[in-house]
Amino acid sequence: MIRRSLQGLRVVLVEPSHPGNIGAAARAMKVMGLRQLVLVKPRFFPDPEATALASGAEDILASAQVCADLDTALQGCHKVYGTSARDRRIHWPVSTAREAAGEILADLGNGDCALLFGRERTGLTNAELDRCQVLVHIPTAEEYHSLNLGQAVQVLAYELHLAALVLRPPQTAPVVREKPAPAEEMEGFYGHLQQVLRCTGFFQPVRETRLMRRLRRLFDRAAPSQNEVNILRGMLTEMTRWATKVDKKDQDSL
Amino acid sequence: MIRRSLQGLRVVLVEPSHPGNIGAAARAMKVMGLRQLVLVKPRFFPDPEATALASGAEDILASAQVCADLDTALQGCHKVYGTSARDRRIHWPVSTAREAAGEILADLGNGDCALLFGRERTGLTNAELDRCQVLVHIPTAEEYHSLNLGQAVQVLAYELHLAALVLRPPQTAPVVREKPAPAEEMEGFYGHLQQVLRCTGFFQPVRETRLMRRLRRLFDRAAPSQNEVNILRGMLTEMTRWATKVDKKDQDSL
Repeated sequence: MIRRSLQGLRVVLVEPSHPGNIGAAARAMKVMGLRQLVLVKPRFFPDPEATALASGAEDILASAQVCADLDTALQGCHKVYGTSARDRRIHWPVSTAREAAGEILADLGNGDCALLFGRERTGLTNAELDRCQVLVHIPTAEEYHSLNLGQAVQVLAYELHLAALVLRPPQTAPVVREKPAPAEEMEGFYGHLQQVLRCTGFFQPVRETRLMRRLRRLFDRAAPSQNEVNILRGMLTEMTRWATKVDKKDQDSL
Repeated sequence: MIRRSLQGLRVVLVEPSHPGNIGAAARAMKVMGLRQLVLVKPRFFPDPEATALASGAEDILASAQVCADLDTALQGCHKVYGTSARDRRIHWPVSTAREAAGEILADLGNGDCALLFGRERTGLTNAELDRCQVLVHIPTAEEYHSLNLGQAVQVLAYELHLAALVLRPPQTAPVVREKPAPAEEMEGFYGHLQQVLRCTGFFQPVRETRLMRRLRRLFDRAAPSQNEVNILRGMLTEMTRWATKVDKKDQDSL
């Protein structure tokens, strides 16, 4: 049987409260051939209840990476998918679980990816969703949306497994593209952009968050390579130097 | 939204040992729009752990039918599907979860159907499988097949929900995307960008054409909308004003 690799995919649980859900997620992953579990500030871990519910997937728990923050969890990932139960008015691209599975498979060809699951009660914060290029939505009944964390992981893992099983090779020749830059490089760029834009007075106070979110969506769609990030940051540096140089020159001419 | 009815479908758990699994199954069902839970000789039921894991799906538990034998559970069903993790040598028709979901939807048009899930450790007996017209198989990784009962119910319920949704054209709200800006607007933006970058001294003479080409490729991939082009040009204008303002202020202070 031919099965495409899901190796480069991290399943990231952000601040899970119930250790049983961590165990259930590990089992759901293993049964569908996923291996990399990353836990951001789990409330209890390791924990006997996690181990009990892993039931045969203890190896996934043993090799799970525990991180103090999301930055560490996403280091080296070039594409981040975030699961979200709620409809978001902001214009994130949204894929269904099934669509996302196919997209993730394709993205794994360019390097590591992450799939984020939020807290049991409150999900992912807007700041965390800002780190995601794509939101993943699991269709549910109208009257009741509350999918348990372990079961949300199960549905996505199942879809990923099926997507990986697709036998036929990609039908079109891949466009030769440089690899997208990893998440931390994009964060560096966004931080730099925001800082320069603050200096310029481009942001009116209330608009800053909303504008940065729009700019993120715009650049995320382009998925800049490392070279391109370097060019963009070079531009920001030169713009700053420009403003500063004019300043300096004038002062020199005093 | 058009959704075909799953009303006539019974989810039958045969001799479940762990009440937590009954609760998880109820939640998995409700979140995917299934309502009829039937329990054949549950070890513990009702049970506080079942209630805890149902978490919002207590109504499914409250209306669950508890039966002393499988005959009672299947009464009035014209088609019975049985889930099975193992490969069976006997020649039952086997459908994958996805195929079965479509078949069950079609069968519901002719009357009530049942979907059987076996015991946590041992599944369904051969005598119970004899009651099934179709076996349902959830594809798993080669190395580890052991899907938890609640998660098996979740996967099937999810597939049934999607199958029921099939009639309605798009499965999720389409991503709200603004129309890409027309070519002349993009040209206006590129011209503006080039002019500002010239001022900053970002271009070394030979690199200008090549760099502008790279920047075009990058922004073309994102296909900015008119609004986004306006934001980008606003940034360029503010950057210029920033440089000039510093200049001015210094001159004013002369």
